Order: sequence, then structure tokens, then C-alpha cells
Amino acid sequence: MTQLIAEKRDGRAHSPDQIQEFIRRLSRKELPDYQVAAWLMAAYLNGLSPEETHALAVATSQSGRAPDVSGLPRPLIDKHSTGGVGDTVTPLFLPIVAAMGLTAIKTSGRGLGFTGGTVDKLSAIPGFRIQLSPEELGDIAREVGCAVAAQSADLAPADGILYHLRDATETVGSLPLIAASVMGKKLAGGADIILLDVKSGSGALMKTPEDAAALANAMLQIGRASQKKCAAVITDMSQPLGASVGNALEIRQAIQDLKLGMQSRLGRLTVELCRIAGRLAGCPVQPESVVQDGSALGKMKEWIAAQGGDARVVDDDALLGAAPVIHVVRARASGFLHEIACSHVGEVVRSLGGGRKRKEDAIDPLVGVRVHASIGDRIQSGDALFEIHANSDSDALRAEEELLTAVHIEDTGCEPPTLIHNVIGLEG
Amino acid sequence: MTQLIAEKRDGRAHSPDQIQEFIRRLSRKELPDYQVAAWLMAAYLNGLSPEETHALAVATSQSGRAPDVSGLPRPLIDKHSTGGVGDTVTPLFLPIVAAMGLTAIKTSGRGLGFTGGTVDKLSAIPGFRIQLSPEELGDIAREVGCAVAAQSADLAPADGILYHLRDATETVGSLPLIAASVMGKKLAGGADIILLDVKSGSGALMKTPEDAAALANAMLQIGRASQKKCAAVITDMSQPLGASVGNALEIRQAIQDLKLGMQSRLGRLTVELCRIAGRLAGCPVQPESVVQDGSALGKMKEWIAAQGGDARVVDDDALLGAAPVIHVVRARASGFLHEIACSHVGEVVRSLGGGRKRKEDAIDPLVGVRVHASIGDRIQSGDALFEIHANSDSDALRAEEELLTAVHIEDTGCEPPTLIHNVIGLEG
Repeated sequence: MTQLIAEKRDGRAHSPDQIQEFIRRLSRKELPDYQVAAWLMAAYLNGLSPEETHALAVATSQSGRAPDVSGLPRPLIDKHSTGGVGDTVTPLFLPIVAAMGLTAIKTSGRGLGFTGGTVDKLSAIPGFRIQLSPEELGDIAREVGCAVAAQSADLAPADGILYHLRDATETVGSLPLIAASVMGKKLAGGADIILLDVKSGSGALMKTPEDAAALANAMLQIGRASQKKCAAVITDMSQPLGASVGNALEIRQAIQDLKLGMQSRLGRLTVELCRIAGRLAGCPVQPESVVQDGSALGKMKEWIAAQGGDARVVDDDALLGAAPVIHVVRARASGFLHEIACSHVGEVVRSLGGGRKRKEDAIDPLVGVRVHASIGDRIQSGDALFEIHANSDSDALRAEEELLTAVHIEDTGCEPPTLIHNVIGLEG
Repeated sequence: MTQLIAEKRDGRAHSPDQIQEFIRRLSRKELPDYQVAAWLMAAYLNGLSPEETHALAVATSQSGRAPDVSGLPRPLIDKHSTGGVGDTVTPLFLPIVAAMGLTAIKTSGRGLGFTGGTVDKLSAIPGFRIQLSPEELGDIAREVGCAVAAQSADLAPADGILYHLRDATETVGSLPLIAASVMGKKLAGGADIILLDVKSGSGALMKTPEDAAALANAMLQIGRASQKKCAAVITDMSQPLGASVGNALEIRQAIQDLKLGMQSRLGRLTVELCRIAGRLAGCPVQPESVVQDGSALGKMKEWIAAQGGDARVVDDDALLGAAPVIHVVRARASGFLHEIACSHVGEVVRSLGGGRKRKEDAIDPLVGVRVHASIGDRIQSGDALFEIHANSDSDALRAEEELLTAVHIEDTGCEPPTLIHNVIGLEG
């Protein structure tokens, strides 16, 4: 290990065998934390080559027990988002591609930080079982065409060990380490087609589309080096993606958007991702057709039921429940909306009880924020900007003050941000 | 701590208060190793400013219990060597400056790696007590003019914590970290005059006089920022300094060199260091005079006796004992001696039992190597190159093979290396 640290300290490259051995010993807990931490900082500052990054992703992907996908129809599709506020793509993407005749499986994490987690969102559906065994995951995907499970501790456990150390040593923001971490889990998942939604903007780790594209390319290189078909979209996270933030609210929003033809930002991005998935899979069916003919909605019910959830929520969203206090936040000035800080909105939802401060925290699925305005909108003083769903008036009033600091209204007009900056990987 | 890591990761500077707080928490064991390790690698790669390096040295110097030097005559002198093979300066330097009428105290470490430690060398004198309380150290120095003690765990303990982590994370070789480590202990020692002997060459951490001067300047900056008088000599470590390597052999050699007027490399360097000490202290007595009139030799006996040692060894070095096997290594070729690899010679002495592989190893004071030749010498095949002092014939034969790989004899002549490259800090 000291050799590895010295090499990386001096900017030299490791061989794939060295990285394999490093991750093998890391998984067996044979390496002291402080040596791994020193290596992480050296890797942060001196970088990793594409070959090293690929070797790191492959080694972490092999560090645990992979789901058995051998009996599933091919190609198998996986989608990953680098994380955002109001990002409810997965609960829409899965039934749409399944309705297109494709098969998609996903393992998802829980929310931590100001971005929500798919596991928490789907758990807002009464009865929905997200803790699936690898066999159940496969059975549901084979039967319905899609399935999602909470990421098990067995999936690429070396990534979890590395992630905790990165989190504690300020080495999270390294592009090759991020790329290897994401792709290590994707490779372990066993899909043939990997779609990446890389966020850019004030609410994302990558602040510019150029930085996001660099991360996307690093991930695509890993996927291709492992003979996966993959593509990436660089998408906007300078405002919440969906019109609702908070677990049950987001599920309700997703169902509504699907029923209304997917014209919202969330809907348009999801459709684009489904179209790319279809293209990579050689599928002639367009996502719009399964949205319009209702088969995607039907597939959503089928899927929710297959995972033990109450599928009646699709027709009657009151079954999702509601928070006791609903409070509308109105604009205190007129002008044009220049900013809706994602991190503020995410933090408000977390402080309402809809997210976690520590891993072991329980969350309240019913609280959250509906966002009634978008960047570029002309606003009149008194217009509804947000709708807070809270457990108490005092929570709601605190949230109102926070939310008002999240928006900036100015006299001059401004353009809405571009939703999809770029699609990478469909050139061929 | 994460803020500190992020700042250093991004190449930003810490304030003295931040560093003080860092070392305070480190000393209380409140910081996880992995965070300190990440900071160390960031500091290794992005460096520390002179102000940060000074703050780190000051903070580590204050992290423990300092010796009480309040009752001692001023100025108080300390000397430090960055470590070499056959470096027996301290046992000569101390009695000579004491004979000049000055006062010198020193805390020394044990040998680890291929360089010996002063503690081990002096422990080869029967009865010599090196584990002194701060009070005993002060009493002896007041009475005799010099005293030496093994470094206590109380002296700058934060440095020890940092050093162990540096050792395990390949961050030892950072110039500001080395400078802060050395000077932290020197500042804690409480001397007014600090003399630094910075080694350069194949047997030293710094391979060139320029690198050694850079380290020396970093240390001098720290000393001056703490209002110490200090100077540094940049000296050669491309061959063993003294003609003997090994604990009792080095003591015997030092006594012999003192009796013979300090004409050897070891003698000349020691006299130069004593001269600089005298100059910084404003002392009119020259070291040559106390060597020639025998008062330095007398002071050596007085000092050894004061520390509980058998001072008769100065007149009868047989009292130091002898290894059972003495084996002469002869040249197998003729030509000019181009190299005597210090690390090889040091490792041979260690493998004979004269040094430690692990901290807890016991050492044999009697084994070692006498070096009969110097770089630049004309050698005839059959000339004695080394004299091995070992515990068995087989040890001696193994050592002979090793030692023959340490020397390079070539046809072309070569110049002896310069012993003292440079003296820094006497400009004023």
C-alpha cells in the first residue's frame, strides 16, 4: 500500500493488477483508513488516468455480490442520475421503457444531503416494497419489464468503504473518483445499456455544462471499456427539475405529469431519456406513443402492484396521504424570476422532515414543497411561488422565510435555462 | 478539520490559529487518523508557506511538557543532525563546547532505519544513563556544561503522532513537514542557539547540497521567527562521516579522534560546528585550543561520569568491550574508490545486530564496521577496506559480501567529496 501511495503521490500510474489488489484488500478491511485516505488525497490532486479509472470501477464492481440477471431479456437497461432536487425521473422512466417492450432494472440509494433518493420517494406509495432480494428483483423485471430495489450492502461494497472515507477527507469532488464510484455500481448491476443523467448548475456538483460533460465522458469511457452501450445527457439543475419536491408530492407529480402527456420539464427530460434508451436498444417504439395510448400508465400500475404497492394511487392520489398544514408562499416583489436555489429548496424539505440529516433518521413522506414558478417567469407581487406541505404552522412559517431567500426576483427579464444541454454518446 | 483539509487540498493557507487548534486537537487524539492523513498528503503535494511551517513548529513545540531550562546559564546551545552513517558528532561536540565555557543540552532519539542514534551510541559506554528526568538533565548541564537525554514522550508529542502517520502514508519527504518536525522539537528543547547539520548526498534524505540548503533555510526561517540564533552547515553524506559505524566502535573512534587532534572528517566537522556555536554565543575561546590543551578530553570524562558512565573508557577503550569476531574485508580489484554507499554500510551494521528493524528490537553495542578507505583513495587489490566486528563467522561473511557491493572501484581517479559544502546563517 505504501508503494501505491508513493506512486500516486508522485503522479505515476498504477497497473490494473495493482488496483485490483488494492480494492481486494480494501474489501477485506486489511488496509488502514489513514493509508487509504492518503491515497485518496493523492488521487484527488494528481488524478487517475482513464485506464486507472476503469480498473478502479471494475475492481469495485467485483467487490461484492452482483444481482443475478442471467434469466432476464436482453438488452437490460439501467439509468443513473448524478442527483438533483425534484428529480423524479426513475418512477416515470421505468414504466415507460417497460411499456415500450424493453426491460429495465435499477438499484437505488436513499437520499442523503439536500437531494432526495428514489428509495424514499417510492416508499411513499403505501405497501411499496423496495427491499427486494436479487431473485425478486429479477422475477418482477421478467414479469413486468421493470423493477427497482434499494441498493444492498452487497453491491460493490468497496465503493461504500471508499465513499465514507472520501466524505470524511474532502475528496468527494474528484472527477475520476466520482466516475469510478458511479460506474462501479452500474457495472455491478449487470445492465447492457447504461444511461447517465449528469446534472449541471448551481444545484449540482458540476456547476457548468462543460464540467458535467467532462464527468459524463469519464463515465462513458469506463462503460465502453467494459463493452457497455452507454450515453449521457447533460441536464439543467439550476432550478428544481419537477414541480414538486418531497417524497409523496413527487410521486403525485410524476403520475400527474404522465397523465398530462409529459409536457413538464420532468416529463420532457424523462421522454428524452426513454427515447435514447430505445435507440440504444434498437427498439422501434417511441416513448410518446406509450404515454399517449395509456399503456405507460397501465404499466405503472402493474409495476407498483408487482412491488407490493397500492396501485390505486395512480387513479386516486389522495391515497398517498397529505400533510396537515398547507401554506402558500407569495411573492413579495414583482419582476422576473432569476433564481430558485435548489439547495435551499432541498434543505427546506429536509428541515420539514422529508430528508435525512443523519443516515439513521426516519423521514416523513408527506411533507415537501410544490414549486409554482420557473426561472424566467414574470412575477407579480402576491403571486403564489411555493406551496409548503408541513406538519405544523411554525414549520411552515420557518420554511417560508427560507424559501423566500431561495428566489431572486429582478426587474430585468431573463431566459429560462436550457433543460437538456447536450446528449453524448449517440454519435455512432 | 474537513475545512482544513479542503483548504490545503485547494492550495490555500491556514492561519496560525487554525494550525494551533489543529495541533491541540491532534494532541488530544480528537482527530481521526484518516483526516490527518488526508491533510498530510495535501500538505505534501501543495506545500506549506513559511508562516504555516513556523506555526506548525510552534504548535508542536507547545504540545507537550518542555524541559525546565530556567536555571541554566545562557545562551543555551542545541545541535541537530538530519541523520547520517558514522555521525558521532554529538559525543564530541558536547564536551568541546562545554570546555569552551559554553552550555549545551541535547535530547536525542534512538536509531531507526540505517542511521544510528546518539542514544544507542552513548548507551555503549558502561553505566551511561541516558534516561534522565528534566531536572537531572538541567543539574548535569549546570554542573558540567553539557548533558544529553533520550527524548521523552512528553517532548512535542504532537510531532510523534504526526511522524508515525507520515511514515505510514509516504509523506515523510515533505520539506516543510520535515522542517516543522525538527524545529518543533528544537523549539520545545528551550535552547537559545540552534545549530543544524543538514546532510546531503546518497546517504541522506536530501541528495544534493541545493536540496539540503532549501531544507536548512526552511528550518532557519522557523528558528529566526521564534527569535532563536541559528545557523546551518550543509555537509557531505556520500560516505560514512566517521571511520567507524556501530555503537561502541563509534564511541571508541570519537575518543581516538579527540586524542589525535580532530584531523579526521568527523573531527573537522565537529570543530567547525563548535566554532560556529562559539561565534553565535560570542565566545572568544576557539575549539582547537580546548582540544589541544586536553581540557575537552577532561570535560568528556567529567561529563561521562556525571551521567553515570565509566569515564575510564576514555583512557582504556578496551572497557567498551569487543565483538568476538573481527574480520577484515579486502579489495578484490585495484583502482580508485568512487563510492562507499552509506545505506549499505548502515544496513550491514543493522543486520549484524547494531541497529533496529523494529522499534522494540534490542541492539548489540559491540558489532559494527570500521571503514579503512575513503572516496578518492587509490586502492590496491588486497588492501583492507573494512573491518567487520561481528558475533559469528557466518555473520561476518554475509556482511563481507554486502559490503563489497557498497564500494565501487574504477580505473579513473576521482576527487574526495567536499566535507562542508556551505555554512548558512553567519552572514550577519
